Amino acid sequence: MTSNLATLYSDYIACLNAQDWENLGHFVHLDVVHNARRLGLHGYRSMLEANYRDIPDLRFEIEFVLIEPPKLAARLAFNCTPTGEFLGLAVNGARISFAENVFYAFEDGRIREVWSVIDKDAIEAQLQFQAALKTAHPTPGNS
Amino acid sequence: MTSNLATLYSDYIACLNAQDWENLGHFVHLDVVHNARRLGLHGYRSMLEANYRDIPDLRFEIEFVLIEPPKLAARLAFNCTPTGEFLGLAVNGARISFAENVFYAFEDGRIREVWSVIDKDAIEAQLQFQAALKTAHPTPGNS
Repeated sequence: MTSNLATLYSDYIACLNAQDWENLGHFVHLDVVHNARRLGLHGYRSMLEANYRDIPDLRFEIEFVLIEPPKLAARLAFNCTPTGEFLGLAVNGARISFAENVFYAFEDGRIREVWSVIDKDAIEAQLQFQAALKTAHPTPGNS
Repeated sequence: MTSNLATLYSDYIACLNAQDWENLGHFVHLDVVHNARRLGLHGYRSMLEANYRDIPDLRFEIEFVLIEPPKLAARLAFNCTPTGEFLGLAVNGARISFAENVFYAFEDGRIREVWSVIDKDAIEAQLQFQAALKTAHPTPGNS
């Protein structure tokens, strides 16, 4: 069961990275709940599609996984350039890296519930640092 | 080993809730690393003491735990009233509830590394909601 979930999860992440939405239903339950919202498979797919519209170079990297069936916990790493706002922050094409700590509960071999937290504090710190660098070293075009 | 870690972790959380700093070293490694910062036991204790100064009614509640030795993952729930700023947000005594998704790596029966993410987005949403309520229904003293 543990190795099943490990394979299932790495296949799910590969599905996301391939934006293979037709096969999302192999991994995600029809009645999936995400952060207490009853999105269902359709809403879950819409959320992911919106993520890729906002972050065209989005890529999910697994740092590590813990499995205790029926739950799985993952530390995910991202390094990407959201084109506009992300989590209410004006990223506007800046390169940011951040982590997501996420739990999943599986039912009938599919993701039934997700508890996800993204490290917004880390993103804010990077944007502030980049803004401070720009102020200290303005590019010729801005001087 | 799994049940050992389960007991160790619930005893660690009880230690935090009792603010029993003298015994923190039974659970936390001398060379502990927290979110990539090499705090050591002394720095870790200072961080927790600062948390209790900022949030006098702080209380750690375990929602659920996953264990795959030597790692443990926990979903923690908080319901508290930070007196001033918290994570850079002007909470100023408002009651907020939020989650923390956190991973621990154990070594020699103690917490050696922590990867913690707090749901700052949820706190911001609650503060915005409370501010909107105040605008819609000002208290007599403010009208």
